Amino acid sequence: MKSFRKELWFDIPSRRAFINITPEIEQCLKESSIKEGLVLVNAMHITASVFINDDESGLHQDYERWLEKLAPHEPVSGYMHNRTGEDNGDAHLKRQVMGREVVVAVTDGALDFGPWEQIFYGEFDGRRKKRILVKIIGE
Amino acid sequence: MKSFRKELWFDIPSRRAFINITPEIEQCLKESSIKEGLVLVNAMHITASVFINDDESGLHQDYERWLEKLAPHEPVSGYMHNRTGEDNGDAHLKRQVMGREVVVAVTDGALDFGPWEQIFYGEFDGRRKKRILVKIIGE
Amino acid sequence: MKSFRKELWFDIPSRRAFINITPEIEQCLKESSIKEGLVLVNAMHITASVFINDDESGLHQDYERWLEKLAPHEPVSGYMHNRTGEDNGDAHLKRQVMGREVVVAVTDGALDFGPWEQIFYGEFDGRRKKRILVKIIGE
Repeated sequence: MKSFRKELWFDIPSRRAFINITPEIEQCLKESSIKEGLVLVNAMHITASVFINDDESGLHQDYERWLEKLAPHEPVSGYMHNRTGEDNGDAHLKRQVMGREVVVAVTDGALDFGPWEQIFYGEFDGRRKKRILVKIIGE
Repeated sequence: MKSFRKELWFDIPSRRAFINITPEIEQCLKESSIKEGLVLVNAMHITASVFINDDESGLHQDYERWLEKLAPHEPVSGYMHNRTGEDNGDAHLKRQVMGREVVVAVTDGALDFGPWEQIFYGEFDGRRKKRILVKIIGE
Repeated sequence: MKSFRKELWFDIPSRRAFINITPEIEQCLKESSIKEGLVLVNAMHITASVFINDDESGLHQDYERWLEKLAPHEPVSGYMHNRTGEDNGDAHLKRQVMGREVVVAVTDGALDFGPWEQIFYGEFDGRRKKRILVKIIGE
């Protein structure tokens, strides 16, 4: 069994954003030389997500609006978590809806994807350095 | 390490449905001859889910009603994504709540499940051919 | 490839709770002697979650309040599932928001975590014995 590990770093200038990281994950897979196995991609921070969906800007605006409705940033005082001095209570909730991680099959050395699947980093509390983990196991 | 891959196709006649696919996944596991490892089952489309819960029709009606409340299909114009000419903006949101994939342990050649765990395909934009991926790795 | 399997049992005295199980998962990893691979931790019951977030009591109160808003326990008659004689319809919904499972990378014999990541058991229908599965594969 072979394994591969890499961290990818982000420093998103806004509080929230969705970033397509599929090319970076494909590059990791190439570096790993793994042909059959599984890729795990996970946020290493608890106010961010990794998820798979469509690279369509209208959809990303829908996600933004919907997540703000489900778990609004304001009022900041509405979250017990923010009594710690933070203002990111909402980000911990949004991340649960969108998920921490994805597991993707590796077949013949490629991400085994359907026609529209793309991997995204979902940032819900940006404006600082944060990272994701890419772990690949297989042969 | 052994690996196994299979696609399962669906053509659901309605927009939304929940289909128990546990027997098909058990059949894949048998074909793979893998005794110890992990099974990944994921939707290959971004308006569908694979999830694990109870095979109880009342619960499925609860899911249907709840997801319609969280991300209603109508009004179709309420989603920016639908400006592309699609009408499935809601399906991309519902799929995030229910999840893209499950990872299940394989022990002694069987799905290592609790008493009520069953695997479901969740369709949120049907009436066309769509598929899921089953990838098994192990020994 | 090595594999390791263990069940962890809970008997939570309240209906709902969040329990930090990171030390128990680290202990499993130690027992497994696996240095590189993946850990799967999943609820074996369909009214409970395993998820990764922050060990901060204010945040856990935010989760509790938020999940009650998204899928309230009362009125019990509001769920079709409860016509089976159960009163846990809400728990099946809450579990979908928080997720069934996490997959964590193992690197150099440790859980490969960011600074605040901790693994939680999320109970939504307690007051009885329930369990999670820990499955580790690797080398």
